[in-house]
Amino acid sequence: MLVRAFVPAHVTAFFVPLFNDDPLKAGSLGAGLNLEKGTTVFVSTEEDGLERHIHVAFNGEPVKRERASISYSVAEELVPADFRGEVEIWQYFDFPNGYGFGNSAGGALGTALALGYTFGGTWLEAARMAHKYEVLHRGGLGDVVGQLAGGIEVRVRAGGPGVGVVDNLFFGDYRVLVVPLGRLSTKEVLDGDVVEAIETEGKLALEKLLMEPRPERMMVLAREFAERTGLLSGELLELAGELDGALKLPSSMIMLGRGLFALLHEKEVDGARALLSDLGLPYDVTGIYDEKPKVGRWIG
Amino acid sequence: MLVRAFVPAHVTAFFVPLFNDDPLKAGSLGAGLNLEKGTTVFVSTEEDGLERHIHVAFNGEPVKRERASISYSVAEELVPADFRGEVEIWQYFDFPNGYGFGNSAGGALGTALALGYTFGGTWLEAARMAHKYEVLHRGGLGDVVGQLAGGIEVRVRAGGPGVGVVDNLFFGDYRVLVVPLGRLSTKEVLDGDVVEAIETEGKLALEKLLMEPRPERMMVLAREFAERTGLLSGELLELAGELDGALKLPSSMIMLGRGLFALLHEKEVDGARALLSDLGLPYDVTGIYDEKPKVGRWIG
Repeated sequence: MLVRAFVPAHVTAFFVPLFNDDPLKAGSLGAGLNLEKGTTVFVSTEEDGLERHIHVAFNGEPVKRERASISYSVAEELVPADFRGEVEIWQYFDFPNGYGFGNSAGGALGTALALGYTFGGTWLEAARMAHKYEVLHRGGLGDVVGQLAGGIEVRVRAGGPGVGVVDNLFFGDYRVLVVPLGRLSTKEVLDGDVVEAIETEGKLALEKLLMEPRPERMMVLAREFAERTGLLSGELLELAGELDGALKLPSSMIMLGRGLFALLHEKEVDGARALLSDLGLPYDVTGIYDEKPKVGRWIG
Repeated sequence: MLVRAFVPAHVTAFFVPLFNDDPLKAGSLGAGLNLEKGTTVFVSTEEDGLERHIHVAFNGEPVKRERASISYSVAEELVPADFRGEVEIWQYFDFPNGYGFGNSAGGALGTALALGYTFGGTWLEAARMAHKYEVLHRGGLGDVVGQLAGGIEVRVRAGGPGVGVVDNLFFGDYRVLVVPLGRLSTKEVLDGDVVEAIETEGKLALEKLLMEPRPERMMVLAREFAERTGLLSGELLELAGELDGALKLPSSMIMLGRGLFALLHEKEVDGARALLSDLGLPYDVTGIYDEKPKVGRWIG
């Protein structure tokens, strides 16, 4: 059987990490948005009566357990212990890994949904499994619940699926500009000194956003958060300034990746493209994904 | 400004009502499914500086406050007190009111989402407002959270949006047959003696479903629930028996309406159509709606 799942890329605008020994209680407060591009996972299963084998591939290339520990852990739990055969998990990413697009959560959630569809279980069980290993392996704290919510999401109570509470903002016909420039290790940032500033500024941003819950306000607060925590600085801050000249709303930093994102109207797209082409920088313009993740049988 | 919202029709398969003085804590456990047809709400607002007027219409006909108390209550709270002008709320239903398709919740949630989009607020605020007046006016206990979840949903913790927890089942390419035959007052059933049987049988059905969480199992349990509570009896039970002859999975009773529903594969549709046409009964075949409700600006 071949099953396909799609999970949107998820960009965090600002956040407050909340650690807990129980992974389901760990999570984050904050806000972010889901993109029409993201992670597609194909899971093929073939029962052959021999041994239980699980394989993971990123963008067509098989990867070892160490490089895909989250997805392997999810699969180990969701493929029945007595299954005898081959389970192949093919993950395809529209954005590069480590750049802050929630790829690890997308891969984990897509894998969990596809395996749940194949072997049984529910959405909540699958989502909790993905969240658990995201937290345990420090992939992220809020991507899974953010991806489940779709649209522009606000995490108002931290926690995994069924524990955390995620709200959504209303939004008009925005496009999303992303400028993915490089990696930033979530693990290193969360283990560093900046965590205190993130907690203070993140709580403040959330409080302010809930008083005026609109996407335009979210972008202003995201930028304040990015600058005040010091996460957005140097060349990336300069670039944000240049983008501001071409756009109505402030751009901000992808949490956590070396990159920027912005909300813009269709008529602003050409100007942004021209600027980024002039600068010779990679960019993409996509839409906001306002649905649930998808999973179903795939007849290719 | 003209804003449109769509909320799927929601059919409950089995349930356990949970009353609470706090409407956000009131709700239900149980399972149900969302349909591709449902309630479409158009909200037009025109500021004219005179008086604040709110109008509600069902299927193009203006309705008085008494007949649309849930939607009027939602609107009274969500239209700002200082708004001066006309607010027209046009609700269109694909199924008749009172037949168990969650129309009152669809109208309330669609109204709340469209007004939230127009005047500000968040999804959670809008959804809570709809749930609150559904509960206070006994429109229903679980429709709003069921409609927010989409797909085939299982209410595993009772309560309103942000309090209750709703799970989803994985499902294949099922169609849904509905046979809407008449009204059944939710209010009267919930005030009657049958509530005890509903509580016992509903809890049992949920427990059994979570041990084997599949749509096929849900239909078997829904039928058991409907018969054991005595809600499905007489002519309606006879009709369910006839449908069983034409379908692979058991049909069951729409909770709460005088009507039946069933999951069927495309190849079973012709047989079901032929049977119901022979019997001279109204029916519809539609799909499962597996998205979030929709809201956005409408340019007609």
